[in-house]
Amino acid sequence: MTKIWANSADSHVLEPDDLWLQALPKRLAERAPRSERGDRFEVLYIDGDQVSRQLNDMMDAIRPPGARDLDVRLKDLDQEGVWGQVAFPSMGFWHVLIRDQELAREVVRSWNDWAHAEIMQRTDRIFTPACVSMANMDDAVTELERAAELGFQAVFLPTQTAAGEEYGLDRWEPLWTVAERAGMALAFHIGTGGDTVVYRGPGGAVVNFMETTYPGMRVVSHMVAGGALDRHPDLKIFIAEGGASWLPAIADRMDEAYRQHGIFVRPKLSRLPSEIIKQQVYASFQHDVSAVDTVRYTDYQNVMWGDDYPHLEGTYGHTQETLRGLFDGVPDEVRERVTRGAFKELFTVPDQTPQQAAV
Amino acid sequence: MTKIWANSADSHVLEPDDLWLQALPKRLAERAPRSERGDRFEVLYIDGDQVSRQLNDMMDAIRPPGARDLDVRLKDLDQEGVWGQVAFPSMGFWHVLIRDQELAREVVRSWNDWAHAEIMQRTDRIFTPACVSMANMDDAVTELERAAELGFQAVFLPTQTAAGEEYGLDRWEPLWTVAERAGMALAFHIGTGGDTVVYRGPGGAVVNFMETTYPGMRVVSHMVAGGALDRHPDLKIFIAEGGASWLPAIADRMDEAYRQHGIFVRPKLSRLPSEIIKQQVYASFQHDVSAVDTVRYTDYQNVMWGDDYPHLEGTYGHTQETLRGLFDGVPDEVRERVTRGAFKELFTVPDQTPQQAAV
Repeated sequence: MTKIWANSADSHVLEPDDLWLQALPKRLAERAPRSERGDRFEVLYIDGDQVSRQLNDMMDAIRPPGARDLDVRLKDLDQEGVWGQVAFPSMGFWHVLIRDQELAREVVRSWNDWAHAEIMQRTDRIFTPACVSMANMDDAVTELERAAELGFQAVFLPTQTAAGEEYGLDRWEPLWTVAERAGMALAFHIGTGGDTVVYRGPGGAVVNFMETTYPGMRVVSHMVAGGALDRHPDLKIFIAEGGASWLPAIADRMDEAYRQHGIFVRPKLSRLPSEIIKQQVYASFQHDVSAVDTVRYTDYQNVMWGDDYPHLEGTYGHTQETLRGLFDGVPDEVRERVTRGAFKELFTVPDQTPQQAAV
Repeated sequence: MTKIWANSADSHVLEPDDLWLQALPKRLAERAPRSERGDRFEVLYIDGDQVSRQLNDMMDAIRPPGARDLDVRLKDLDQEGVWGQVAFPSMGFWHVLIRDQELAREVVRSWNDWAHAEIMQRTDRIFTPACVSMANMDDAVTELERAAELGFQAVFLPTQTAAGEEYGLDRWEPLWTVAERAGMALAFHIGTGGDTVVYRGPGGAVVNFMETTYPGMRVVSHMVAGGALDRHPDLKIFIAEGGASWLPAIADRMDEAYRQHGIFVRPKLSRLPSEIIKQQVYASFQHDVSAVDTVRYTDYQNVMWGDDYPHLEGTYGHTQETLRGLFDGVPDEVRERVTRGAFKELFTVPDQTPQQAAV
C-alpha cells in the first residue's frame, strides 16, 4: 500500500533535563523550569513556584523511540509517513509562567539556542517555534527578531493569558508588528498558560480535554475582534492541537455578534470576522474526520493535520491507519490541502525526493 | 415569493413586571427577581443579591410589537414565517441564582403557572420550558413532574453551574430520571447561570458573545463524558442560541479523548461520545450558514434554527431574508430538517393548515 506522507503541524521536542543547568548561571538555572518526580506526582518548579501534576499524565504514557533522540526521531517520522513537523517545547512551555524579567529573558533565549543548535542545525524537516518572554514585551520583541535571524519560522504563544493580558490588548502590538514583518506565524498551543486539570468529577479526562479547546477559540476571538489581525493582514496565527472543525462555527458566531450587536462593537473592522479567519487563522487536529469535512465542504481551508508526536493523543504507531481513515474516498486536493498545502503557507518545507518518499 | 415557514427553537417571553408581586406573598415577592432601571444601568435584585447591567443591553435594543402581548406576538410570528416557537424566560432566567430553597420553589412554581395560564392555555404554537429549582433537587423533581402534568415539553436549565454542581455529577440523577420518564427535553440556554460580560477590552461585544458559547459546549461535555446521557438513552438535551456547527467538532474531540486517553477515562460509556451526541444532543442557531452545512454534509442532524425573538441577535424583521440566505440552493430535505424535522423530535407542533401557511 502506498504510504500517505503528511506534514505535521503539531508535535513536541523533549528537552534535555539539564538544558538550563548547562546554559544558565546557577542563580538563574535553579529557578528555571525543572521537574522532580515522585511515585504518583511530578512537581514542577518554575521561578520559585510549584505546580503538581499527576504522574499518569498523558505526556508520559507513551514514549516513541525517538522522543529524545533526533536521529531516531527522524526514523520514527519516516516510518510513520511524517515529512515536515512543527515541534513545540515540552518543559519549555512552562517559561510562560515566569514573571521575573531577567529569568524569562534568559530561559527563552537558551531554549531557542538549544533548539537552533540541536534541531534546526541538524535537520530542515523539524520546525521549532521560538519562545519569547511573557514577562517583558521589549524582551519579547528583541528575542523574536533574534529568532527570525536564526531562521525560526514561528513563535510559540500560550492559549491562556492572565486577566489584563488578553491578546486583543494594545500591549501586544509591538510583538505583532515584528512577527508580521519577519513573516513568523504566531503558533498558539492549547493547554498552555493555565491549569490543564480544572475538573475532577465523572468524565474528567474527557471534560478536561475539552477544556483545553475553548482557550484556543478564545485566542481567535480576541485576535479577530480586538482588531490585531485586521491591523496586521500579513500576520498568520495557528492554534495547534485543539481541532479545526470549529473554525466555521466560531466565524459565523463572531459575524453574528459583529453584525447584530454592531451598535456596541469597537473597534470596527475592515473585514467581517469570518473573512479574517478564512485568511489568517489556521488550526491543527489529529483524528477528527470533521476537520477534513471542513476543508471539503466549506470555505475554511486553513486546516492542518498534526501527529502530536510523542504524545498519547497523537498518532504515533497508527499514523498511516489514521491518515487512511481520514482520507479514503476524499478528493486528492482536500488531502493535499490538509496534509501539505496549508502547512506550506506557514513553513518552508524541504522538497521530498521520490527516494525519500519511498522510505 | 413563497414564504419559508420554520419552527424556532429559541425565543423569549417577557414576563409582566409584577408576576411575582401578584403571585407570591410579600415576604417572598420582595426577594424574587426584579429590575430597577436608572439612566445607564439596570439593577437586578435576586434573593437579596444585586446584579448591575448596562442598560444598552442587547435585550432592550429592539422590541418587536408583540414582545409583551401574545396576540400581537402571534401576528409577528405569522408575518415572519415562524410557526412553532420555543419561548424561554427573560426575567425568569434569574431564578437560577436563588439559593433560598423556599424562594426558589415558589418563584419557579409561579413562573410555570403564569406560563401555563398565559401562554400554553392560549396557544399551542409556543412552547415555554418549565423552570425548576436550582436550590433543592427534591423540589426540582417535584416541580418537573407537576410541569409534565401541565403539558410542558421541556425544562429550562442554565449552561453555567456553580463549581461542584457540574452536570456530570450524581446530584442531578433524580432530575434526569424524571425528565427522561416524562419525555421532557433538557433545554439549556446560553448566557444563563453566570456573568455575561467577562471582558471589557477591545472587541468586547464580540468576545463576550463568544464567551457565552463555551458553556454550552461544556454542558455537552459533562452530560456525555459523565455518563448521564448514556444512562438515559431516551433523554434529549438541547443547547439554545449558541450555534450548532460545533457539534461535529466537539464530538470528534471527545472521541479522541475517550479513545486516546482511555486508560484514564471513567466512567466507560456504552457508545462513543460522538454517537451519543448524534442521538441525544440538539443545538440551535440563528444566522450561521455553517449550521446548515453541518446537516447537509455530516451525520449530525440535530440542528434547529431559532429566531431568538424578540432579541437583537435574533431575526425579527429579517426572518425571511435570513431563511432564504440560509436555504437558497440547499436540498429540500436539509431545509426541512433544520426548520422542522429536528424540532418535531422534541416538541409536538400543531399541524399548519394551508390557510394558516398562506398568512
